[in-house]
Amino acid sequence: MTDFLQLVKERRSANNFLPNNPITKNDLNEIFDLVKYGPSAFNLQHTHYMTVIDPDMKESLQKAAFGQHKVLSSSAVIIVLGDKKAFLQAPEIYEGMKMLGILSKQEYDYLVNDTVSFYQTRGEEFQKDEAIRNASLSAMLFIMAAKEKGWDTCPMIGFDPDAVKDVLNISEQFEVIMMITIGKEKVESRKPRSYRKPVREFVTYI
Amino acid sequence: MTDFLQLVKERRSANNFLPNNPITKNDLNEIFDLVKYGPSAFNLQHTHYMTVIDPDMKESLQKAAFGQHKVLSSSAVIIVLGDKKAFLQAPEIYEGMKMLGILSKQEYDYLVNDTVSFYQTRGEEFQKDEAIRNASLSAMLFIMAAKEKGWDTCPMIGFDPDAVKDVLNISEQFEVIMMITIGKEKVESRKPRSYRKPVREFVTYI
Repeated sequence: MTDFLQLVKERRSANNFLPNNPITKNDLNEIFDLVKYGPSAFNLQHTHYMTVIDPDMKESLQKAAFGQHKVLSSSAVIIVLGDKKAFLQAPEIYEGMKMLGILSKQEYDYLVNDTVSFYQTRGEEFQKDEAIRNASLSAMLFIMAAKEKGWDTCPMIGFDPDAVKDVLNISEQFEVIMMITIGKEKVESRKPRSYRKPVREFVTYI
Repeated sequence: MTDFLQLVKERRSANNFLPNNPITKNDLNEIFDLVKYGPSAFNLQHTHYMTVIDPDMKESLQKAAFGQHKVLSSSAVIIVLGDKKAFLQAPEIYEGMKMLGILSKQEYDYLVNDTVSFYQTRGEEFQKDEAIRNASLSAMLFIMAAKEKGWDTCPMIGFDPDAVKDVLNISEQFEVIMMITIGKEKVESRKPRSYRKPVREFVTYI
């Protein structure tokens, strides 16, 4: 049992990781089992995670991340992807609600058509924005859930997305949203917590 | 003290809210006091929150959200904004580290220049993507922190962003990322939790 407030205050982006701290698929699946409860627009679950444990692949990703050391010293590198065409899965995602009788056939058809047309009429730029938006919501939950399971993370944007796509053979349908390194933080490398704006500087009341 | 796992599993996007449940600035500030600990790229803290309690303004936002009832029945409507030019604040944000002697004058100058050029060389599309990405990370923390304080939320994308910008007089520098309604959920309106993909369908191991 981990208190939420404590978790929020103790979570820090790891500056570096202790090497040779393997993480297992089982450890990671425990995290993802929480991540799946996160919200997404129209419940389309736009987010995919490519989880790289293989040392050679990590080395290739390190190159795509301009040689950053923590990509290699981390226990795993997670590439967060956003599916720009997630709306095309609406029929499968809502199917269960029809089967359970929560939606009539008519309501199901309406919901599917409404969702697909919401994305299609807004076009490709919006579809990409939605991929970024929904995958980032999910990524924050991943970061928190990892911390709850005793793992430190660092969300990263300093990489070449095209190089990452090449290394992992990622199709055009997916947007590379973020790299998250995960491991056990090398506490000696820790800097003081960086400055945060006071609430009045980022919140306006109307 | 609220257990993180319980919070993740109990959080649901509210389908509707009990009307006449005022939320105070104090309630909201308690939430934002946790939100500020969230991560952001280069610690640029791209996210701004416009928090609308005023009933007339909520009515205008309801129009911008195609008349959705929960915009009006919520206790407050929060417009999450992403600052596309957040990188221009790098000098102020890193100033404290120089004053505290954590960074030398030379390191500070390097960090500021490096951050600003990272955004400038990548251009406007990247700056917008970063606004969406970082504000969405923050929004997820808001949703969790609100639940911890006993409030239900619904992250929403069904609105006209230009109409929201007009209502709140939002400048071009900011991207409207999301609308979040907050209040006490009308539990009778609750539907069964919607389907979630099993982990193996959204996670790949390499």
